[in-house]
Amino acid sequence: MSVVTRLSDMGIELPQAAAPVASYVPLMVLGRTVHISGQLPFVDGKLVSGKLGSDLGTERGKEAARACALMILAQLEQAELLDRVERIVKLNVFVASSPEFSDQPKVANGASDLMVEVFGDAGKHARAAVGVAALPLGAAVEVDAIVALKA
Amino acid sequence: MSVVTRLSDMGIELPQAAAPVASYVPLMVLGRTVHISGQLPFVDGKLVSGKLGSDLGTERGKEAARACALMILAQLEQAELLDRVERIVKLNVFVASSPEFSDQPKVANGASDLMVEVFGDAGKHARAAVGVAALPLGAAVEVDAIVALKA
Amino acid sequence: MSVVTRLSDMGIELPQAAAPVASYVPLMVLGRTVHISGQLPFVDGKLVSGKLGSDLGTERGKEAARACALMILAQLEQAELLDRVERIVKLNVFVASSPEFSDQPKVANGASDLMVEVFGDAGKHARAAVGVAALPLGAAVEVDAIVALKA
Repeated sequence: MSVVTRLSDMGIELPQAAAPVASYVPLMVLGRTVHISGQLPFVDGKLVSGKLGSDLGTERGKEAARACALMILAQLEQAELLDRVERIVKLNVFVASSPEFSDQPKVANGASDLMVEVFGDAGKHARAAVGVAALPLGAAVEVDAIVALKA
Repeated sequence: MSVVTRLSDMGIELPQAAAPVASYVPLMVLGRTVHISGQLPFVDGKLVSGKLGSDLGTERGKEAARACALMILAQLEQAELLDRVERIVKLNVFVASSPEFSDQPKVANGASDLMVEVFGDAGKHARAAVGVAALPLGAAVEVDAIVALKA
Repeated sequence: MSVVTRLSDMGIELPQAAAPVASYVPLMVLGRTVHISGQLPFVDGKLVSGKLGSDLGTERGKEAARACALMILAQLEQAELLDRVERIVKLNVFVASSPEFSDQPKVANGASDLMVEVFGDAGKHARAAVGVAALPLGAAVEVDAIVALKA
């Protein structure tokens, strides 16, 4: 069963793969490793913006992180690599945070949980989650990824 | 001589490998490359929290970075990979910083120096050190790593 | 034609490769992959410091990002790897930002555009650009890189 079919069974439709905001590419394949550019959170086509700890609550942040992860899948699908995913290797989750916010792991779980829902054990990954001062376009979360492909 | 024996000779005991704060795994092996999740600084079982430039001095930050590096070793040991380390390839050091703090390299040396003490030349690595707005649980430092394994 | 000759034809002279600010190495080769440490922006030998959104405008930030990218090339040249570049795989661009600044992609283009000018299609890369609270020595931008080498 294709990943898109599985997503559909889960009631999840992938977003339109966003074009890079600037002069780079959405992903780069190096042998069987894919480096995916930092993806921003679009829900119903609208960017989730603001900072955790001041503008957004943790639950909304988690939704944003999940939206970033969906965009990672959308980029893989657009590159016709989604059904070749062997393993989600690493996620870096950057959370726009007020200086006092310390629940970056809960926010980042929005992305991590989705990967496990979609890929099962193959979706389990190493992760870094940090709170940053500001993100492109005022986004609440940005997630990049390293993914391993089947041969 | 095993790395744990060498650490013991250096008077260093590895901490208990911390469980992930959330839904991800401590490390992911991809061929001979290991991606290790961002590790937080525990000294005597207590998290070193606060920000450099306001709450903590550089020396305390350096101790925190060293504690993160020890946790990286503890994760490798728990996965039975510590004696297979061929090279520390890359460390990313995230330092919780007030906007004026600019000694992230000195702080990060706490992690870098430990790797060289433990592994000698094989502990020398590429590195990025940046100052971030906030870290999980209010931690002062977070370090993730890429490590190469012997065949 | 060597990359240095091409740079020269473009009127670009590489800076002196900066020594690491601390106890790590400028780059680490792992098989055909090179991990390059975070590089700071030196223009005419002087660090570009300050934060985007308060101290510097976007154009100056873009120049700083370009200077970081030139330093990445200088490190590759010093390691005698510049003419073996097969592909720029990933850039991580850390932009020292006030909490309101959201044009990190425009700033980061200073680095991305240079890579494409120098290497053409082989210079196109995946990228993450984030706004951080503070950078080493007060730098405005820091860029690290993953580069693939020809066999």
